[in-house]
Amino acid sequence: MSSSYERGFASDNYSGIHPDVLAAIAKVNFGHQISYGDDETTALLADKFRLHFGDDAHVFPVLIGTGANVVALQAMTKPWEAVICASSAHLHVDEGGAPEKVGRLKLWTIPTLDGKLTPELIDQQAWGLGDVHRAQPAVVSITQSSELGTIYTVDEIKAITKHAHSLGMLVHLDGARISNAAAALGVPFRAFTTDAGIDALSFGATKNGAMLSEAIVILNPDLVKPIAYLRKTSMQLASKMRFISAQLDALLTDDLWLNNANNSNQMAARLAAGVSKIQGVQIVRPVEANAVFAILPAAVTEALQKRFHFYTWDQVTSEVRWMCSWDTTADDVDTFVAAIAEEMDKI
Amino acid sequence: MSSSYERGFASDNYSGIHPDVLAAIAKVNFGHQISYGDDETTALLADKFRLHFGDDAHVFPVLIGTGANVVALQAMTKPWEAVICASSAHLHVDEGGAPEKVGRLKLWTIPTLDGKLTPELIDQQAWGLGDVHRAQPAVVSITQSSELGTIYTVDEIKAITKHAHSLGMLVHLDGARISNAAAALGVPFRAFTTDAGIDALSFGATKNGAMLSEAIVILNPDLVKPIAYLRKTSMQLASKMRFISAQLDALLTDDLWLNNANNSNQMAARLAAGVSKIQGVQIVRPVEANAVFAILPAAVTEALQKRFHFYTWDQVTSEVRWMCSWDTTADDVDTFVAAIAEEMDKI
Amino acid sequence: MSSSYERGFASDNYSGIHPDVLAAIAKVNFGHQISYGDDETTALLADKFRLHFGDDAHVFPVLIGTGANVVALQAMTKPWEAVICASSAHLHVDEGGAPEKVGRLKLWTIPTLDGKLTPELIDQQAWGLGDVHRAQPAVVSITQSSELGTIYTVDEIKAITKHAHSLGMLVHLDGARISNAAAALGVPFRAFTTDAGIDALSFGATKNGAMLSEAIVILNPDLVKPIAYLRKTSMQLASKMRFISAQLDALLTDDLWLNNANNSNQMAARLAAGVSKIQGVQIVRPVEANAVFAILPAAVTEALQKRFHFYTWDQVTSEVRWMCSWDTTADDVDTFVAAIAEEMDKI
Amino acid sequence: MSSSYERGFASDNYSGIHPDVLAAIAKVNFGHQISYGDDETTALLADKFRLHFGDDAHVFPVLIGTGANVVALQAMTKPWEAVICASSAHLHVDEGGAPEKVGRLKLWTIPTLDGKLTPELIDQQAWGLGDVHRAQPAVVSITQSSELGTIYTVDEIKAITKHAHSLGMLVHLDGARISNAAAALGVPFRAFTTDAGIDALSFGATKNGAMLSEAIVILNPDLVKPIAYLRKTSMQLASKMRFISAQLDALLTDDLWLNNANNSNQMAARLAAGVSKIQGVQIVRPVEANAVFAILPAAVTEALQKRFHFYTWDQVTSEVRWMCSWDTTADDVDTFVAAIAEEMDKI
Repeated sequence: MSSSYERGFASDNYSGIHPDVLAAIAKVNFGHQISYGDDETTALLADKFRLHFGDDAHVFPVLIGTGANVVALQAMTKPWEAVICASSAHLHVDEGGAPEKVGRLKLWTIPTLDGKLTPELIDQQAWGLGDVHRAQPAVVSITQSSELGTIYTVDEIKAITKHAHSLGMLVHLDGARISNAAAALGVPFRAFTTDAGIDALSFGATKNGAMLSEAIVILNPDLVKPIAYLRKTSMQLASKMRFISAQLDALLTDDLWLNNANNSNQMAARLAAGVSKIQGVQIVRPVEANAVFAILPAAVTEALQKRFHFYTWDQVTSEVRWMCSWDTTADDVDTFVAAIAEEMDKI
Repeated sequence: MSSSYERGFASDNYSGIHPDVLAAIAKVNFGHQISYGDDETTALLADKFRLHFGDDAHVFPVLIGTGANVVALQAMTKPWEAVICASSAHLHVDEGGAPEKVGRLKLWTIPTLDGKLTPELIDQQAWGLGDVHRAQPAVVSITQSSELGTIYTVDEIKAITKHAHSLGMLVHLDGARISNAAAALGVPFRAFTTDAGIDALSFGATKNGAMLSEAIVILNPDLVKPIAYLRKTSMQLASKMRFISAQLDALLTDDLWLNNANNSNQMAARLAAGVSKIQGVQIVRPVEANAVFAILPAAVTEALQKRFHFYTWDQVTSEVRWMCSWDTTADDVDTFVAAIAEEMDKI
Repeated sequence: MSSSYERGFASDNYSGIHPDVLAAIAKVNFGHQISYGDDETTALLADKFRLHFGDDAHVFPVLIGTGANVVALQAMTKPWEAVICASSAHLHVDEGGAPEKVGRLKLWTIPTLDGKLTPELIDQQAWGLGDVHRAQPAVVSITQSSELGTIYTVDEIKAITKHAHSLGMLVHLDGARISNAAAALGVPFRAFTTDAGIDALSFGATKNGAMLSEAIVILNPDLVKPIAYLRKTSMQLASKMRFISAQLDALLTDDLWLNNANNSNQMAARLAAGVSKIQGVQIVRPVEANAVFAILPAAVTEALQKRFHFYTWDQVTSEVRWMCSWDTTADDVDTFVAAIAEEMDKI
Repeated sequence: MSSSYERGFASDNYSGIHPDVLAAIAKVNFGHQISYGDDETTALLADKFRLHFGDDAHVFPVLIGTGANVVALQAMTKPWEAVICASSAHLHVDEGGAPEKVGRLKLWTIPTLDGKLTPELIDQQAWGLGDVHRAQPAVVSITQSSELGTIYTVDEIKAITKHAHSLGMLVHLDGARISNAAAALGVPFRAFTTDAGIDALSFGATKNGAMLSEAIVILNPDLVKPIAYLRKTSMQLASKMRFISAQLDALLTDDLWLNNANNSNQMAARLAAGVSKIQGVQIVRPVEANAVFAILPAAVTEALQKRFHFYTWDQVTSEVRWMCSWDTTADDVDTFVAAIAEEMDKI
């Protein structure tokens, strides 16, 4: 690889900090402030989240996405309850077992074609209510945009929350890439969260240009008090929180969140368009957010990975994943597409 | 209070980021880097920690101090084992139950006069080995500098590690304020850690001028592998880790850690000296690091707390705690001492 | 030792099964019955417990005392909450860390002289409400009769429940030896439980003549639903439950529980009376139930332990514990007293 | 139903205690014995298990099957590791979340046709070794006989242990119905456990004629020490253990285990044979142990369930499960077959 710092397509968390976010950190770096969230920056942030998620929304800044998910889901479950999620959920496959091991959550998983649950799919696990031998299904967790690069429509989410609520279950949304979803749908956050019946969500900022900051947004008022305690107990409470809150605030200022998300989505679309013209490379999933999944010959993947960072998604099928970031440029994409074409030519 | 941003004496985590630390974050903010710790900044940091803690030291950057403690102690214990600590240990009293609830650690606590354990005190709990009814004592955790502002000498630590190891126990050091201890003792970190038989420690950076970064330093090679996994499982692994590592690196560059710690220690000494001249105010614990504990009339405390942030330590005895920070100035101290004198005069 | 089956004074769980209890097991041993508690024996048991504990009492048979405690306390706490108990509580010192490790309970312990808490002692830990850094005190757990052989009066328990409830806390009673307490106080169970404001309790049967059976009795209706699930999740639900319930039923039939408890209490009194006449042996705690604590020369203890099973309670002070059982006879006691006198004579 | 005590086909844990087992309990009910497993009955039991499982086998009596599984699997995993099992594993679907909630185990599940894993199926989850984001596959757990009434051959188990060990994983066998498997295979226990490379297993006794007793059998010596502690910490250690051990001993005496298992297996075969002659009822899984799975009209199931206890296995497909017990008689089976035929005639 020409330089280890070259922009690739491995993950949107390989990117750095957007300059405006870094400036926001610097801007609140003076004097003393009360620690652990009782500072002025965090108070202002609460107002800003209410603008986006409605007057009853409560925001709790945390440190990482796994933390956001596990803290929220603990608040949403009793010790004998379980969470229904897709088999492909980050929660299930990529969090090192934190849900089970830190949150003592049982996950009831459901295979999907596109990373998205439906009321019908949920019913595969939403049974056995009242049976003490079955960890009780109590929460449905969906990911928006999903781990497979797909996006739930507003109506799809409404159908899920309606169904879950009718069964006495709550609905959690893992929004590690929530900005990409909002940008792609062209609606405000609240359209597919607050107004669609979501009870609690993880609001991802790190992948969209922050340095290190995520948030739990509580829309169901019963969950507010538990979160305050569980955030501490689960080791997600920052002492100098003003610097976490400032990052979130910067993203929510002047549509920075939207511009960043639009860019990564558009770059994914450009990448998909470019690649679709190369014979022998197959785009295998809908490109709805900032991820592109493709199948290409293993030898080509190997050659490309010497020049660019990206991950093989499925060794067996030779499927790879390409993620675009807030800082991916059209030139990055075009260079990469040309490289793919070049390597395909060699075989 | 004239301004919420005025520097007070509540906690060293009310302070902001040292300019050199913020500059270090900015300096590594370009291009892409592998996430989750396989970046160049983190690799260089490993070298720097080896300089300070010896060739066999392994550093694992984490997010917060509670996380550093709980991850390390999980690696040091089996599921049926327990940790011996002082009753005043932060681990026991100030971490929201995270050791028990996330780390499923049993704590065997021991009352102390000065926050420091000794081999004799440890023996109050280091018994019942082999008895399945007793959570097995397996680790001694000490805090340096302690929660009561005191410091273990090198020999005191050596006596503890020798005793613990002779009983088959490991020794953990909670170094949330390790720099204050090293500065006060006037020795390198390794003198009272690596060379004194410590097996693993939490290296605090946030209170000493960082924004958000702590580290686990492993000195006992058996603990290296578990930490890598437990850091993720326990939700202490940052995705854009270069920005955590850069902060730690900045503190270890050009003795920034030492200068910051020296300043807060000296300001505590200046505060103690100033206060000791005021009749009716009693300094009640040795001032060895950056904390001053004093007893003063409750009415005076109340009046002062309207002007300055600081915490009452013990409601019953009217004891208060004053912490000095890396950014506390002589002027801050003198103003505060004058205010105390002024309020004492009024009664 | 003449025979390993000789009755000693080590623990009331060295004893066997009362013949009536064994007969009760045999009596329900025919045909098939629905498993996991939906059987007729368990249904009848529920009626019997209501007779003793009031119309709103719910009984949940479980397997062991640690299980009874940990299941009940999980139902009584949220994941960020803690339990206040005496430092000598079985919960804290003798359950292998199960409360912390299975129930993820934080215990706030309080030293006592006699194993009994008081409102004043409770206040040593009942603070910090609303502070997320402090595992929130939510339950007071008391042991009746206590681990030190003492008994709470009805008024002492009422004072505790009144105080705890006024602070928003619940009260749990570990009744591993609840029958000894009721027998000694000469009152029905409900006098110091239901009518004294207890929210939930562990009802011990094994030590009082059962083979293997304990129960959780819920008096606070909010706790009923959680227990049903937590009993399973915490691995305390027997499949062939009729045989657990039959044991509890036998003890509650024809005052068997009372006769057994009276016997062990009376034997302890006889032992204390006998020993108190031997010069050089000191009874060091009030003998209120079926335990006698004494200090005698270590050499005498050693000699006696070659002939009788009993435990040294405190190596440092040479204190020993002698427990009487439902099957201890006056002859057992007199033989033992004579042996003590004999060994004392030798020194 | 004519009587609630009528023998049905719901579960082998609806049955009672075999008379020899009850007699064995009575036989050890005299005098005092050291509690918690240091008694003579338990010592003799250890010898008996060594006869069946080899000289290096260690037996640990426990209380229930879920406990046996969760204690063993905790000993076999580190806190960041996971267990691979079939989606139909009792561990996953029927233990109220105890593995996750008590044992903080992550389960990687695999769909199977017949409840049995194979090396190829295991590979669906045995990947990602060394990746901290993936809970590390460390144990394969198989059930013998399986939850679907099937049985692994000796060679099938050897293939699994060889494959798992080659990947650095251990193999656990859930033997809730291990006697049915041994009886069906016509081999000693050790043929498909010790001699087939199994590391640890749950030995079920309750379903095969005991009142309440299961055991963990450790074949891999590294696991011995952890089990002793974890059994207590996980609330599976009985105080009056002689009565647990006596039950296991009775089953292993004079081939009682084998006779009981042979009976339930033969009754299942008789039931399957009888039912297969009834037109419109379909046996849908191989009948290899004591379970029969059949599909019959929902109306018939409903009518039959008014007269006999048995469970619907799958509401959607109208599949039911019929379990035979150690006490099921040929007459029970014939009566039931006749009833099925009668109800089928009605439609």
